[in-house]
Order: sequence, then structure tokens, then C-alpha cells
Amino acid sequence: MTFSIHRASIPVLLRGLANLSGILAKGEAFATEKNIDPAELIQASLAPDMYALARQVQVASDSAKGCGARLAGLEPPSFPDTETTFAELCTRIDKTVAFLKGLTEAQLAGAESRKVTLKLRGREVSFKGDDYLLNFALPNFYFHLTTAYDILRHKGVALTKPDFIGGI
Amino acid sequence: MTFSIHRASIPVLLRGLANLSGILAKGEAFATEKNIDPAELIQASLAPDMYALARQVQVASDSAKGCGARLAGLEPPSFPDTETTFAELCTRIDKTVAFLKGLTEAQLAGAESRKVTLKLRGREVSFKGDDYLLNFALPNFYFHLTTAYDILRHKGVALTKPDFIGGI
Repeated sequence: MTFSIHRASIPVLLRGLANLSGILAKGEAFATEKNIDPAELIQASLAPDMYALARQVQVASDSAKGCGARLAGLEPPSFPDTETTFAELCTRIDKTVAFLKGLTEAQLAGAESRKVTLKLRGREVSFKGDDYLLNFALPNFYFHLTTAYDILRHKGVALTKPDFIGGI
Repeated sequence: MTFSIHRASIPVLLRGLANLSGILAKGEAFATEKNIDPAELIQASLAPDMYALARQVQVASDSAKGCGARLAGLEPPSFPDTETTFAELCTRIDKTVAFLKGLTEAQLAGAESRKVTLKLRGREVSFKGDDYLLNFALPNFYFHLTTAYDILRHKGVALTKPDFIGGI
């Protein structure tokens, strides 16, 4: 298989989402084990004006489905941001995974040259597909995955790097 | 230009390192402005058993030069982990940038199929080049970039997402 924009996007996003599910499962187990309210983790953030864990997961989901959809020339599906429990966040991830798994290699063929336009902080921004994936969507996706991990680590959950990287 | 493993690695790493330099510059300016010892930021971490800021930057540098070198079939250059100031961390980033800029597209041609072997936690692990880049090197690179950002945000530095994403 030659290197392609499909290879660099869909399986990468699916892998990151699977790792995120595992990280959240360890967060939930920690809350149970320590007998603390799971909401204390779900509402935790690293600074008063940073997103809390739930929002980090929602935005990671948005980044992933937005990336897959836009590279395929589709409108991203809209999911309401209503999750307040670990179970609901995991369902959100599962829905995101199901959407991405529905995208075919053929739909992404040539996506490196596709014009991608999105609204960022109120203004329209256009990218070439490869720049969108590599300069915006993937860094953004990893930012929210890592910050979800960092929030849980900061709260005492015994995560290690392999939880973030996944099986190799 | 077709999508290539060079496009998905070297310019991506260079962009991330430039953003990291900018983030550190804001950290240093914050220390000056608030009249706090820069070492308080450089030695800060999000959990007692997580790497401090300096080590996050060193490992981001290691991920970047390791990735470029291994995809080109070269031995990664070794830099001593001795940085203790913002200026020294920026020099480390500059050295990493200089190394990556010395790699040519021709050196990375076909790297998606190159066998990459590295030692991880004491055991030898082999990857196909594309799996190495996408499942290991890039997630690891972004993990340390994001955690550097998160540490500084947690310490009160007024960073915003564009500092992490860079100009678009």
C-alpha cells in the first residue's frame, strides 16, 4: 500500500479514539476505586479558563469527525454536546468511530488537493486538504487527546504513556 | 505535489517546533512580567511523577530528530539533556530544526516501507515506516508539545490555541 491521505487520517483518528476510550475507562475505574464522584474528574480542568475533561473529549470527537468528513467532501455530522458521564462520553466516541468507519478510501482519494473551508473564531478559513489534515486537524485532535490525558494524570489517575500511544 | 511521507513528517515537525519556541517565549515573558524565577516554570509538572517542562521539551526534540533520522535511515543525533533555562531550551529546539532542515525529500523517498527499529522500555520494537510515523512518532511528538503547553497554562501563562496550532 502506498502512503496516502487516507492512511494518514482515518486509521490514525480511529486509533486515537480507541486510546481515548481506554484512558476514560481508567478514569472511571479510578473514581470507583477511590470512591470519588466521577463528576469531579469530568468537570476538572488544568486552568480556570481551559476546557474541562468532558469538553476536551467532545472537541476531540469534533476534530475527528470534522477531519474525516471534510477530507471526504462531506458535511460533518453534528452531535449535541450534552455528555456529563463517562458512559455518555464513551458513547460519543463510539458514534464518532462509527461515522469514520463509514468513510471509504475511495471517498478520500485525492483529498490532499481538495479545498477545505471552515469557520474559525468567526472567520472563514480555507486550506488545501493536506495542509488541513497536517497543520490543523491532527495537531488539534492530539491536543485534546493529550489534554484529556493530562487532566486525568493531574487528578491522580495512574495512566502511562502506552495508554496514550496504544499497542505497538 | 503528491502526498508523501516527507510532506507528512518533516514540515509538520518543523512547524510544531516553531510553535513550541513561541510557547516557551511566552513562558519566559510571563516569568519576567510576574517577576518569578523562570526555574519555577521550567521545573513545573502536572503530577509529581510526570516530566517537568524542560524534559517535555527535550523529549519533543528527541521525538522530532528521531523521527526525521529514522525515516531517512540515519542514526538520530544525540543531544545531552542539560538544558535548565529558556534560552538553552530554545537552542535545543534550534539544533533540532537545523538537523531536520538538513534532510532532503530524496532521503525520505519510500520511507513508508522502511523498517524502523528502536528500543522502547528495554525491548526492541520494529515498525514499518508509515506505522512508525503515524502510530508512534507524531502522537509522541504532539503529546510532549501539548503537555509543555498545558504545564505553562496551568502555571498561569496566557497561551491560546493559536499558539499551539501556529499561523493558518
